Amino acid sequence: MFEGPVQRLIDELTRLPGVGRKSAQRVAFHLLSVEEADARRLATAITDMRDQVRTCRRCFNVASSDECMICRDERRDTSAVCVVERAQDIAVIERTQEFRGRYHVLGGALSPISGIGPDQLRVAELLVRIEQETVKEVVVATNPTVEGDATALYLARELKPLGVRITRLASGLPVGGDLDYADELTLGRALSGRIEM
Amino acid sequence: MFEGPVQRLIDELTRLPGVGRKSAQRVAFHLLSVEEADARRLATAITDMRDQVRTCRRCFNVASSDECMICRDERRDTSAVCVVERAQDIAVIERTQEFRGRYHVLGGALSPISGIGPDQLRVAELLVRIEQETVKEVVVATNPTVEGDATALYLARELKPLGVRITRLASGLPVGGDLDYADELTLGRALSGRIEM
Repeated sequence: MFEGPVQRLIDELTRLPGVGRKSAQRVAFHLLSVEEADARRLATAITDMRDQVRTCRRCFNVASSDECMICRDERRDTSAVCVVERAQDIAVIERTQEFRGRYHVLGGALSPISGIGPDQLRVAELLVRIEQETVKEVVVATNPTVEGDATALYLARELKPLGVRITRLASGLPVGGDLDYADELTLGRALSGRIEM
Repeated sequence: MFEGPVQRLIDELTRLPGVGRKSAQRVAFHLLSVEEADARRLATAITDMRDQVRTCRRCFNVASSDECMICRDERRDTSAVCVVERAQDIAVIERTQEFRGRYHVLGGALSPISGIGPDQLRVAELLVRIEQETVKEVVVATNPTVEGDATALYLARELKPLGVRITRLASGLPVGGDLDYADELTLGRALSGRIEM
């Protein structure tokens, strides 16, 4: 439809998650109209990321050296490990500034339907870390989904024998939310997990 | 927040139109997880487009040689020219398969507030083309906005003395739409532009 080089970029953009034909066109024409240096900076950012980013050998977060910036940070509390499904979940938790320990990226959640069992996740690596790093608390921050909950239960069972404290993120009403708009599962969790005042 | 190279890509992505922080993160982590070749192909598509795309010397559409693929196409009707605000509008009109003439990209619409007068648009180039290419009909396809309408009226006044037929895209109800949901301006246009049956 468009001139070759424009169409090829639109095709590539359309492969990105959440980018449809319209927004791909919009982005392509935007990149055509901005300063040449701005467009090239985006291209370079993509290749630089692929060239420079690896996996943290300790927690499997993204890293630009052997260890990620959180594992390298000596002010972090090494006795607490927060288990997340994916590396990008770490940023969300970091933004709360409520957790000062380290992380462990599982690489997904248990899902028998998709053929993801404990061996497809970094569970063995977590068990090793708990012993080697004398971890005292594991905060399981898998998603509040069927798979995430199953993973949390599985981890709890595996970690119990190690004598480590295991906690799970609370489920309940979103702050600033409205009872009227809460779905019944969330409201049910908020009830069963109600706390003393 | 994220490791350097990841954060730099997220920052670049956030500058794109319609891309917020969340979608930038999603795209960055997607580009981290796909095959290396897939990520590099996107980067190459960006730089290739900037290297190869220029402006059609005739109609100011994007082009990969002196003239765009529409102006080069000898099957097009050279007696009709469709005037659009931006190059990307051409694709939308092409998709209808209702117009077989050539195009002319104005480069925007008249907007006194933003300091865009006829001299900032490619109006003079249009007048030259009409004489040189013996154009018989000019279809004004500027947007149905205040600026687009003002531009259409201005062009009609300028082109009248050249003895060329001037038409404007019809405004009215969207096909498949519902009267209930039409805004009053659109409905008003549909009424004033009603056609005999």
